[in-house]
Amino acid sequence: MRVYLAGPEVFLPNARIILDLKGSLTRSAGFEPVSPGDVAIDTMPDKHELGLAISVVNERLMKSADAIIANLTPFRGISADAGTVYELGFMCGQGKLAFAYTNLADDYFLRTVAYYGGKVITGLDGRNRGHDGLSIENFDMVDNLMVDGGIDSCGGSIVRGNVAPEERYTNMRAFKECLNMVALSFGVS
Amino acid sequence: MRVYLAGPEVFLPNARIILDLKGSLTRSAGFEPVSPGDVAIDTMPDKHELGLAISVVNERLMKSADAIIANLTPFRGISADAGTVYELGFMCGQGKLAFAYTNLADDYFLRTVAYYGGKVITGLDGRNRGHDGLSIENFDMVDNLMVDGGIDSCGGSIVRGNVAPEERYTNMRAFKECLNMVALSFGVS
Repeated sequence: MRVYLAGPEVFLPNARIILDLKGSLTRSAGFEPVSPGDVAIDTMPDKHELGLAISVVNERLMKSADAIIANLTPFRGISADAGTVYELGFMCGQGKLAFAYTNLADDYFLRTVAYYGGKVITGLDGRNRGHDGLSIENFDMVDNLMVDGGIDSCGGSIVRGNVAPEERYTNMRAFKECLNMVALSFGVS
Repeated sequence: MRVYLAGPEVFLPNARIILDLKGSLTRSAGFEPVSPGDVAIDTMPDKHELGLAISVVNERLMKSADAIIANLTPFRGISADAGTVYELGFMCGQGKLAFAYTNLADDYFLRTVAYYGGKVITGLDGRNRGHDGLSIENFDMVDNLMVDGGIDSCGGSIVRGNVAPEERYTNMRAFKECLNMVALSFGVS
């Protein structure tokens, strides 16, 4: 069984070390890890072509995997990394098993309210809105309801961790819990 | 042919009007529009269950559609709305046709540099990084490379619009261009 490891750790200064650590934990849990960046990319004529080539490789790796564990820890804003969310959607669209985790305890509603500096109005329709009029989801979820709902629909769940800010992208506790749940789902011990 | 219309316009104060406008334009282009929120949801025991039920309905609508047009205009930050990105990934995972547009011309690199207040360092590996050490993608793309690359892989492309800030979520020019390209792809005139 192969597990695709999606998350913003690819952007860390020590990305390779963290990806290798996740890979090693995944092997210990009885699975073959598959990570973005596992395959070397040929030189390309320009940066746009290079980006497309990386995407093609990652999609191929996803298709080869049986499950995904997505790190939904908010990245440069209130939501998860867009690449990770795309990959989660892709795997759910393929009917693969999906688990996820976040290392930030605050739910999506709280983070969005903080984005508006705590200033939330109630619209005529009874929905919470920011000063820009945009409604604020309040469904007790980790991120947009399509993210949480998609994981639920494909048989998984989300682990909510809570770690010190300096460990936000490196702490492995919630990730290990996901590995345990994938093992339970696949009957691997 | 059914086209799923994904985008952050569901959060607008006049969401229904904008969704209806997009639906009407889609019909004029010869397609059946499918939008999140098209199906009424039963009352649920709590808000989390309600959120999950909305997700289930939207995933069912996506499965019924042949193509997606995703509005990737940045939403509360530098990336597209997480729900829209999930839906794009889901449809690409299902092998459906995907087109997208953004109403903000600046590419992902420029927006990320602006997020760091213009202060970008070059790491020992030659990559651009923010003060937090996180690397900054620079692939001449609209969003994370998995988003742009995924659309390319499933036969579509992204229209880059450029509209006044007050029209950011309502201007239909780039959306109409997407409709024209979907029509060309499906041989609908």
